[in-house]
Amino acid sequence: MTTSEAPTDNGVNVQALLDARTALVDAPAGAQFTWRASHEWVRGTHSQSEISDFFGLGGEQAHRTSWSFDADHPEVFASEDHGPTPVEYVLVGLASCLTAGIAAVAQNRDIQLNSVKATIEGDMDILGILGGDPETRNGFNEIRVTYDIDADATPEDIEALVAQSQKRSAVFDVVTNPTNVTVQVN
Amino acid sequence: MTTSEAPTDNGVNVQALLDARTALVDAPAGAQFTWRASHEWVRGTHSQSEISDFFGLGGEQAHRTSWSFDADHPEVFASEDHGPTPVEYVLVGLASCLTAGIAAVAQNRDIQLNSVKATIEGDMDILGILGGDPETRNGFNEIRVTYDIDADATPEDIEALVAQSQKRSAVFDVVTNPTNVTVQVN
Repeated sequence: MTTSEAPTDNGVNVQALLDARTALVDAPAGAQFTWRASHEWVRGTHSQSEISDFFGLGGEQAHRTSWSFDADHPEVFASEDHGPTPVEYVLVGLASCLTAGIAAVAQNRDIQLNSVKATIEGDMDILGILGGDPETRNGFNEIRVTYDIDADATPEDIEALVAQSQKRSAVFDVVTNPTNVTVQVN
Repeated sequence: MTTSEAPTDNGVNVQALLDARTALVDAPAGAQFTWRASHEWVRGTHSQSEISDFFGLGGEQAHRTSWSFDADHPEVFASEDHGPTPVEYVLVGLASCLTAGIAAVAQNRDIQLNSVKATIEGDMDILGILGGDPETRNGFNEIRVTYDIDADATPEDIEALVAQSQKRSAVFDVVTNPTNVTVQVN
């Protein structure tokens, strides 16, 4: 790097993350996190979920604020469309997880990102959720994420960034691998 | 039912859904949906996703409005906490999918719901995403959903409602079973 170049700044404090990794390898109890939402039915297929706090680093942690999210089904499902469908929230989670990873990996590799845009699409045969075909799954048949990335790097380096992000993405893992879900009624 | 009882009304038009199922079994091309989001990096681990339209019933469909969602990492990850974490969006999707199903199944079974509340929690060992332990997965180790439901039904009928909702939930399927995700760079 010559003195005329600005240092890479994607806004990710990679040194703090590397330090956290070192600290948590030595004290793994702090790495046990629990993420949560409180949730309430409104009417019909409309519900609201609130995100405000979580457990991690050995104690309760609060977000800087809390957020409330409406979900619903669309009018073509004879619903009132008060919010995105539940599956669209999963797409938001997947795209945002991959992009956060791209920014962090780019910072760690000294690659300046200029812009990162993506489209994410998930195909679903709704005969599954409607119970119209027992052979059709309820969820997505396939999800496609397509990135347009402007960065001070070669196309190969950009491809490698995206590949590394997938390798460390929590939501990519959740979607591509099975997770045990327990649902109980008090 | 006596004439003094009000008809069950959970706000779900079950007849329309049953009619749609019949119609789509006969014309299955209409059941092929594609859900999508457009997505853009802001800075650091902060991104924004927009939900506005989707494909289904053989053509493009628009939501009644569009919604934008900020996602970020929290301050304990040395980030600025401009929105929920990506994994918390998955919890929103899962809870809202199960609850929409509970309302629809209850309507179909002539069970009046009075209130439905839930907490949803997902455990994660963040040594996975930090790359601190190759044996630790990136995603959730386990998700727990706990419902409190007040309905004009027996506890057994309420349990059965929740079980049927899981059986037909798109997001429950996405989380508990693998889905293929393709990530490409233009």
